[in-house]
Amino acid sequence: MDLGEFALIDCIRNQYKVPEGFLGIGDDCAVIPQCDGLETLLTTDMLMEGVHFLIDDVDPYSLGWKSAAVNISDIAGMGGIPVASFLSFALPKKLSDTFLKEFLRGYKDLSDRFDCPLLGGDTTSSLDRLCISVSVLGNCPSGLSRKRSAAQEGDIICVSGCLGDSAAGLQVILKGLERGELESELVRRHYRPVPRVGEGIALSKLPGVHAMMDISDGIGSDLRHILDESHKAAEVDTASLPLSDELKEACQKYCWDPVKLALNGGEDYELLFTVSPEAYSEGLPVLSYPIGRVVSGDGIRWIGRNENFMGFRHF
Amino acid sequence: MDLGEFALIDCIRNQYKVPEGFLGIGDDCAVIPQCDGLETLLTTDMLMEGVHFLIDDVDPYSLGWKSAAVNISDIAGMGGIPVASFLSFALPKKLSDTFLKEFLRGYKDLSDRFDCPLLGGDTTSSLDRLCISVSVLGNCPSGLSRKRSAAQEGDIICVSGCLGDSAAGLQVILKGLERGELESELVRRHYRPVPRVGEGIALSKLPGVHAMMDISDGIGSDLRHILDESHKAAEVDTASLPLSDELKEACQKYCWDPVKLALNGGEDYELLFTVSPEAYSEGLPVLSYPIGRVVSGDGIRWIGRNENFMGFRHF
Repeated sequence: MDLGEFALIDCIRNQYKVPEGFLGIGDDCAVIPQCDGLETLLTTDMLMEGVHFLIDDVDPYSLGWKSAAVNISDIAGMGGIPVASFLSFALPKKLSDTFLKEFLRGYKDLSDRFDCPLLGGDTTSSLDRLCISVSVLGNCPSGLSRKRSAAQEGDIICVSGCLGDSAAGLQVILKGLERGELESELVRRHYRPVPRVGEGIALSKLPGVHAMMDISDGIGSDLRHILDESHKAAEVDTASLPLSDELKEACQKYCWDPVKLALNGGEDYELLFTVSPEAYSEGLPVLSYPIGRVVSGDGIRWIGRNENFMGFRHF
Repeated sequence: MDLGEFALIDCIRNQYKVPEGFLGIGDDCAVIPQCDGLETLLTTDMLMEGVHFLIDDVDPYSLGWKSAAVNISDIAGMGGIPVASFLSFALPKKLSDTFLKEFLRGYKDLSDRFDCPLLGGDTTSSLDRLCISVSVLGNCPSGLSRKRSAAQEGDIICVSGCLGDSAAGLQVILKGLERGELESELVRRHYRPVPRVGEGIALSKLPGVHAMMDISDGIGSDLRHILDESHKAAEVDTASLPLSDELKEACQKYCWDPVKLALNGGEDYELLFTVSPEAYSEGLPVLSYPIGRVVSGDGIRWIGRNENFMGFRHF
């Protein structure tokens, strides 16, 4: 296959006419208008053994947790309320009943936190690898869902929490590092993200909050989506990226570059949003770290670094 | 894995409380009440290389067609109107751009027939095999969606079209039979089902039509779902199963058992429904073949055959 991921998505997107009032491909969720001032949101994600997780390393409880979390996070990224989830899996013979039960326990624990019951799905067999697909349906009062396309020049770019911990946890896993308290905590943050549902809903009520999405592929990629859809550019101050003490400690210990982890790593599942300076100065109802500003033009200028950051690419 | 498919589904189903007015696991679609007399339907299906299709045999256009069709058929099985679809795939490196484009062309041609645009999904990479997951969202006036659980004693069991052609087409593929006109036609029926959307909507408007679903795993399995959910039994007259001329011809040529293909084969994507004798005698608005009757008790009595038929099992 020569088509890149985003070229493929564009190719599909251009083929379908999106009905009036709907939002199609190109955001965290599709938006389907309903009657009476409500919109339905729908998002779906696929997790593949060998690509998204290593079956011999992953703790099945965490995998179940994360499978639900990443989708609920897409609902959060639009400011929506999760309503129900749908879980499909293709199960290889090698998979034990214990693995499956632990997976389902983790999935349920995360879903229960957000009162989002599992209402359907599909089970089938797989020749060799475990494959998981989750869809989550949510809703949102009409007009309140936050799109990627709404960033305005002059907006302050904010994130809702620390970046890079999940990417550092992945490094611990991939490099097979010995897991002390620090390493285990980073691995936990990689496997057990908590979607920012309440934060997304609170932000969606503020007219000054313009574009919003969740951070799944790293700011280097995700911010670019907001800018592309909004036809804007950005300046990001790499010195202002919120980094946890754990990330700083691990970066010192292993000589990792925290900025790279924060911008390219992804899977933080924090919210990335842009807000007018006026709304920002009045104070936001959720924890927010300003990291830059929306400007006119093209691309991202990374203040403090002489290189480019592109986020995580799937292929 | 020792858990069977249905034991696994039951295990999941028992863990989640279904909110009032919702319908969860155990039917063709989940049902989510919306305001103003509408319900949202959601269904999802996974298709795995090596399990549901052989990548070296399948025509990518047909695979795309069928991926959309089997999900839209679940909406049809409840009497719903398809609104939008969501396509996720995990793509192995070996897959050519041509394969992908033909797949998308087939997916779109089927979707366009039912005015059901693709509004989202996920693309990721796969280490080796192609994996496809499709979700379709539909809607239905409140109270009109037809459940599996509504069969009543005395109901006539009907199907909307011929059974077994798809299963015979699969035999042609699996046995590598030389493809004359007859064999090619059966293969086409296997790969290019047309969901019975209009028929499902028409039937959902008749109060005398009680239980309904689409036929994906064969009557031997699917009728059992209706009976289990309705706490009823059935008598099926195996001599009354509607069989196409092509199926009869192929069965003579290859010494196949048409009843087995019709009952165990699956993937017909016709509608299976139960209807009161009164409504039946008044005439149904769609092509229907009566094949048996709902009775009290347990299980299915196959009149004319001294054996049991269980339909297709995924694992």
